[in-house]
Amino acid sequence: MGNLVRIIKIGGKVIEEADTLSDFLEGFAKLEGLKILVHGGGRSATTLSEKLGIKAQMVDGRRITDAPTLEVVIMIYGGLVNKTIVAGLQAQNCNALGITGADMNCIVSEQRKPEPIDFGFVGDIVSVNADVFQALLHQHITPVIAPLTHDKKGRLLNTNADTIAARIAVAISKLFEVELYYCFEKKGVLRHAEEDESVIPLIREHDFRAMKEAGTVAGGMIPKLDNAFQTLNAGVKKVCILNHQAINELDTQPSNGTTLCL
Amino acid sequence: MGNLVRIIKIGGKVIEEADTLSDFLEGFAKLEGLKILVHGGGRSATTLSEKLGIKAQMVDGRRITDAPTLEVVIMIYGGLVNKTIVAGLQAQNCNALGITGADMNCIVSEQRKPEPIDFGFVGDIVSVNADVFQALLHQHITPVIAPLTHDKKGRLLNTNADTIAARIAVAISKLFEVELYYCFEKKGVLRHAEEDESVIPLIREHDFRAMKEAGTVAGGMIPKLDNAFQTLNAGVKKVCILNHQAINELDTQPSNGTTLCL
Repeated sequence: MGNLVRIIKIGGKVIEEADTLSDFLEGFAKLEGLKILVHGGGRSATTLSEKLGIKAQMVDGRRITDAPTLEVVIMIYGGLVNKTIVAGLQAQNCNALGITGADMNCIVSEQRKPEPIDFGFVGDIVSVNADVFQALLHQHITPVIAPLTHDKKGRLLNTNADTIAARIAVAISKLFEVELYYCFEKKGVLRHAEEDESVIPLIREHDFRAMKEAGTVAGGMIPKLDNAFQTLNAGVKKVCILNHQAINELDTQPSNGTTLCL
Repeated sequence: MGNLVRIIKIGGKVIEEADTLSDFLEGFAKLEGLKILVHGGGRSATTLSEKLGIKAQMVDGRRITDAPTLEVVIMIYGGLVNKTIVAGLQAQNCNALGITGADMNCIVSEQRKPEPIDFGFVGDIVSVNADVFQALLHQHITPVIAPLTHDKKGRLLNTNADTIAARIAVAISKLFEVELYYCFEKKGVLRHAEEDESVIPLIREHDFRAMKEAGTVAGGMIPKLDNAFQTLNAGVKKVCILNHQAINELDTQPSNGTTLCL
């Protein structure tokens, strides 16, 4: 267990509801061993943008990060959400440190090319500094990472939290045994989208290929699973997709949710 | 020089104006040796509060930190200002890490008693964890501290940046030779408030006592200087009050502004 690092990614409702977040943080703080928390932003950035009269610019259902929106996500993700989580974990004696990719230069990205769609100030990760995470973990500090990176030229960039979690997992997989947990609202990958209990406990890579061919996996799940198998092929030991409440049982019931492996 | 740490506090216009901040960060990044930056919030928190329709509650010219205002200062101080500074320093190859007192549990405070005035979510510092700062400095990481602390029970608290700078200075003065620099808009402590060039280069403690008795020091300056001499008496080597532009000359002309010593 000494060399195991669990990377947990949260987003959505867990972040938006104070009580749900508080329950989650209690469970996360109790998790034994080395761990990293990566959080998304939830809808609070949209709420603040609306209050400030910043018009959401959407393309293909995805929000464009223009300059005023970038300021909002820095305030919400890097400030309110990140520091609320850190203070909550400290109250549970988990020695958290809230960071963005700019802090200690730990994640460098480049602004996405404006063609075919100009997403604005969105960053695609160029490099993750594994040494920074190793040093923190060795000091028993738990990194809490906001979905923001920087271009090393002074610009912060909005960056997908799922991708940040996966890229950190791969980067430190040379130094640690890494397990990656994606927490979301469902109990796992479902065999039948409308049946909440139809969780598929284990998907191996060849199962996934067969499921894709047979069309038995929901469309929205395909890119998530594609990324997960890429992460596994790059050295991460295990990827799990599970409900945020399962965090409380991770030490005793590690088979909750859906486990993906090669 | 190996054991010297310079703590620089900035606030006001330096933070509010992008170009002024950029110039300051360039100078700060170039400073040799170990250093810590503490920043205030400037007026950007007030601007955001106004946009959000949060009514400023003032007592004796001081803003009350109610719950909505606390969220705003976490967003602005802990998020936008702090992370903008960190990204700006990283662009200048200064390995910055932006933190609040909650991060790594480095500054614990308690909420100020509601009598005689209830200032709301304002924290008075209880303890500074010198080991955290020592570990960061030894790793050549430059801490950038937002004016927020926590009560170790999950609550972030708005905390005066001047006080944070002074308390960190005292806490690490057992481990390092510490110099504390308060940057502001004037060139130093002025002999005549209306004459910008009438900077007093050196004030020793007995001079200050004499100046207070003779009434030759501006009223607003007295608490600042009182605090500075307390800090010196607690082990800090030197306190300077100077203009933020003087940061560029700190390595070559350390006598800029007003120097206070015992």
